[in-house]
Amino acid sequence: MKTRFVLINTSHAGNVGATARAMKVMGFDDLVLVAPRWANVLNREETIQRASGALDVLKNARIVATLDEALDGMAHLCATAMTPRDFGPPTRAPRAHFADLLSKKERDAESGQGLRPDSVAFLFGSERFGMQNEDVYRCHVALSIPTDPKFGSLNLGAAVQLIAYDWRQALGGFAVQSATPEPQLADAAAVAGMLRHWEEALTDIGFLDPASPKKLMPRLNQLFNRAQLSPEEIHILRGVAKAMSKSALNKAMPDADKTTRSADTPAAQ
Amino acid sequence: MKTRFVLINTSHAGNVGATARAMKVMGFDDLVLVAPRWANVLNREETIQRASGALDVLKNARIVATLDEALDGMAHLCATAMTPRDFGPPTRAPRAHFADLLSKKERDAESGQGLRPDSVAFLFGSERFGMQNEDVYRCHVALSIPTDPKFGSLNLGAAVQLIAYDWRQALGGFAVQSATPEPQLADAAAVAGMLRHWEEALTDIGFLDPASPKKLMPRLNQLFNRAQLSPEEIHILRGVAKAMSKSALNKAMPDADKTTRSADTPAAQ
Repeated sequence: MKTRFVLINTSHAGNVGATARAMKVMGFDDLVLVAPRWANVLNREETIQRASGALDVLKNARIVATLDEALDGMAHLCATAMTPRDFGPPTRAPRAHFADLLSKKERDAESGQGLRPDSVAFLFGSERFGMQNEDVYRCHVALSIPTDPKFGSLNLGAAVQLIAYDWRQALGGFAVQSATPEPQLADAAAVAGMLRHWEEALTDIGFLDPASPKKLMPRLNQLFNRAQLSPEEIHILRGVAKAMSKSALNKAMPDADKTTRSADTPAAQ
Repeated sequence: MKTRFVLINTSHAGNVGATARAMKVMGFDDLVLVAPRWANVLNREETIQRASGALDVLKNARIVATLDEALDGMAHLCATAMTPRDFGPPTRAPRAHFADLLSKKERDAESGQGLRPDSVAFLFGSERFGMQNEDVYRCHVALSIPTDPKFGSLNLGAAVQLIAYDWRQALGGFAVQSATPEPQLADAAAVAGMLRHWEEALTDIGFLDPASPKKLMPRLNQLFNRAQLSPEEIHILRGVAKAMSKSALNKAMPDADKTTRSADTPAAQ
């Protein structure tokens, strides 16, 4: 959906740069500044620095004199306003409003009834004074990011980042690039074989007494179930068992090679 | 739940201040810095300035030499890592992981089985190099904020803000302080009465022809239904209807007072 971010009377150049970066990481690029404090804000050093790599957003950004010019072609207007007003559009949390807006959009597509926005503009007021009432009155909703009632002072760039994130998520979001290959689970037979291997080894090293095993093996079984072992880890644990037995038996009878007892296990190959 | 934010080898003072502010607006206050670039980072001017009012978070923050010291007493460790690794904890989106973590927590409370964290630490690496592999390997999960694959460069303070927001939301969140009184809906009878009043008025001003009304009134009915009128707005619209009739009828016959036709309406009192 066509999405625009509008900063009204922004005074800190750093916030303009941070806004461009916050938009770009969430895949948005339409930025309009209404009467910013600095006419050259798009080229100021602090702006460039805080924008990091998002220079194309700054390059395409428009500076206009009035909110009217900033809102051309936008259907659904979201104010971001923290200060209570006696009158105005309903105040809603971004996540809930976005979900309703998009589900309503679908429902409307069927019924052909009611609101069907194809474009959304997010309006942000100045750092010091927020949005003016007359600007809020034009909007369909006043988005309020839920913050600690004792400390609601959200930085402008941070507010843009949160709105851009929630809106992108509502639109379907970006996929998380998994950093690791999908974990492969060892099957129950492999776990059971490993446990039999450990039972032998724990007996060889004198930790498990076959005469009174107590609940040792069931406890280990539960532990390894929770650990959700991979085939590689089964292999490692069998290697540990093999080494336990080998060291114990070799110590007991140096010239005997009892490790053949484990010859049926992969780790013993 | 006990929650801690851990910044490892942070180099920009401004990011430490932004982190303190990002935490505080979401109601968190436990910040630990592991070997930051500046030993006096908590007192630097840029830190104080970017922290805005979150000075208590800076005041209570600890600076330690090693990650071990930073993690004392924390059960569930969340790395934040963007760069893919061949091996390590599963990579997950914050929102999905937090939902599972907390629902798992409940399920475990019943069954007495498995992971039951009572504390969560979020680890953030340095601005330039991110987290070192050996630090990521200690964690239960690698959180990856879904960003545009073409531009994933998230500012450190912005990343802290998004994680703090999603975690606070997962924990139940803060209530949105409604800026306006709950909207009261006019009932259908009030809407119907207003529409009858408008039908008269639109006839008086010659816009509605009773001989061929077409679908004008049903269309207005649909429009006003979608608008979800309040009692105050019904009153306003009746006032408009009354004024339409009055001006039309007075022009037609100056000395007659035809407005008594609307005497049964509130707007006519």
